[in-house]
Amino acid sequence: MPTAKPSGIAVGVDVGGTNTKIAAVTPTGKILREQSLPSEVAAGPAKFVERVSAVITSWRKEGLKVQALGLGLAGDVDSAAGTLRFTPNLRGWDGFKFRDALARKLKLKAVVENDANAAVWGGFVVELKRKPKHVVGITLGTGVGGGLVLDGKLFRGATGSAGEIGHNTVESGGAICNCGSRGCLEAYAGSYGIVRLAREAVEKDPAHGSVLKRICPDLSKLSPRDLSTAAEQGDEAARQVWDRVGSLLGVGISNLVLILNPECILILGGVSRAGHWIIDPLKSVLSAKPFRTPFSAVELRLADNPNAGCVGAGLLAFEKESR
Amino acid sequence: MPTAKPSGIAVGVDVGGTNTKIAAVTPTGKILREQSLPSEVAAGPAKFVERVSAVITSWRKEGLKVQALGLGLAGDVDSAAGTLRFTPNLRGWDGFKFRDALARKLKLKAVVENDANAAVWGGFVVELKRKPKHVVGITLGTGVGGGLVLDGKLFRGATGSAGEIGHNTVESGGAICNCGSRGCLEAYAGSYGIVRLAREAVEKDPAHGSVLKRICPDLSKLSPRDLSTAAEQGDEAARQVWDRVGSLLGVGISNLVLILNPECILILGGVSRAGHWIIDPLKSVLSAKPFRTPFSAVELRLADNPNAGCVGAGLLAFEKESR
Repeated sequence: MPTAKPSGIAVGVDVGGTNTKIAAVTPTGKILREQSLPSEVAAGPAKFVERVSAVITSWRKEGLKVQALGLGLAGDVDSAAGTLRFTPNLRGWDGFKFRDALARKLKLKAVVENDANAAVWGGFVVELKRKPKHVVGITLGTGVGGGLVLDGKLFRGATGSAGEIGHNTVESGGAICNCGSRGCLEAYAGSYGIVRLAREAVEKDPAHGSVLKRICPDLSKLSPRDLSTAAEQGDEAARQVWDRVGSLLGVGISNLVLILNPECILILGGVSRAGHWIIDPLKSVLSAKPFRTPFSAVELRLADNPNAGCVGAGLLAFEKESR
Repeated sequence: MPTAKPSGIAVGVDVGGTNTKIAAVTPTGKILREQSLPSEVAAGPAKFVERVSAVITSWRKEGLKVQALGLGLAGDVDSAAGTLRFTPNLRGWDGFKFRDALARKLKLKAVVENDANAAVWGGFVVELKRKPKHVVGITLGTGVGGGLVLDGKLFRGATGSAGEIGHNTVESGGAICNCGSRGCLEAYAGSYGIVRLAREAVEKDPAHGSVLKRICPDLSKLSPRDLSTAAEQGDEAARQVWDRVGSLLGVGISNLVLILNPECILILGGVSRAGHWIIDPLKSVLSAKPFRTPFSAVELRLADNPNAGCVGAGLLAFEKESR
């Protein structure tokens, strides 16, 4: 007898510190509709739920039969209660009852999950086709998140907080992170950390960052994309910043490889588009590790679709549906 | 129908960089015989197997019916092949076919496992009575090892190398570790790292370490136990060293809590006898973390029996037997 497979359409919503992506997906991760909107964190979570609901309502009016919804939120999520417990990048949103608000507004089943867990699950199902047994996923966006797939299942830990790689310390007493701690990986490899490093580099030695300043004269508006363009055009400061970001990401990933001995490290999120600028220094750190076995056994992979977050959130809604 | 439970007697052998412990145990971890011998690493692994076999043979002559043997080795163990792949603290022992050599000599089934995995399994079964779902164990001895129990089972990862917390970087570009890397947790919290920190502290400011020097005039023979005694007697240098060791252990453990969100962190091994000198600074680091949920959910526990290694190795021999 074949196992009952999920069917129908789910909507996945991926909320980052800056932008939110919404997608209607099938159980295999095929995208039927897709839309982006600014997260507008300052306007508060109730306003956010209204705007997301409006999109889904319009899709329904077009004939899309949406059955379930998965919401991926950047922070420490209480899946059981459908709320956010703590969040450095969605200030003021903690404690809001997302699941209940969405379910009430849209008359459907809603599940709430950490955004990185959702993205990693999306990458695991769609890109890795559930093949490796153990996968560690890292999302590089405004913040740095992580998700663990162990024995083919999302591993949530005792309270659903597992996979918080972004707040691992990679530099004792280092830069201040949005979470309030010092030296977290996110403080160097989250987009705000990268931009801060770039500004510091240019301020310290303006001659070095001349290309960067030409590309983005107002350094307060600098983006990781500008930094990649500058590195591409030979800017020494930009290259040094990417070296530092990639090396510290390498420290964090080395720790994960030594702890979990996964078959695959999957890197997702917008910042991963920096490609070799971030991967080359990262690989140098990994290849210098004397414990060869776990490092030889792991495949380092940049996700083809760095925005698996909304797809994964939708796919997780199916998982919960079928339980 | 009840599940067939393992029965009989297994011998567990726990090999550290300095000492080896051997115990004959029942399936619940009751110790029937116990013996210690120096590991004598320099004499080589064949000689070691001979000495261990002599102990077990003498126990058999006394009437003990030994059916299986579990060997816990400090290093990267290939359980499938029954060998050591890489080891910083058992130099020259890598590549030796321990399982085959022991099985041939003693005519019994032998299993080989990482020593920390064995110790953590011992603590999980005997001390925690298999109650928590997710446990991270850390062994503080000559080296620093780790083992993961996830969903009530020993988690080995893709190649059996999971749980290598000792070689996690806690201080980028820091002290040299026995593995060859810099800044590993072991380089600060392994006994050789602790002793190095103490020597450096006394050399830097001899007035500070006066009690320590009185307790152990030849600093080349200093042990973590001397350091605890000195701290107890008010030695400022000794207290500062323990603060640093505990804080860096706190960094490593914080990372583990954020990654795995376990219900329990179990600290084992001889160095854990330093008790509050190591635990107090460790707890300070954990309690300063802004992500409260995983830190509130975790119990930090010093093992009552810090030498669960040989018991756990024996218990793992039962596990393998019953599969």
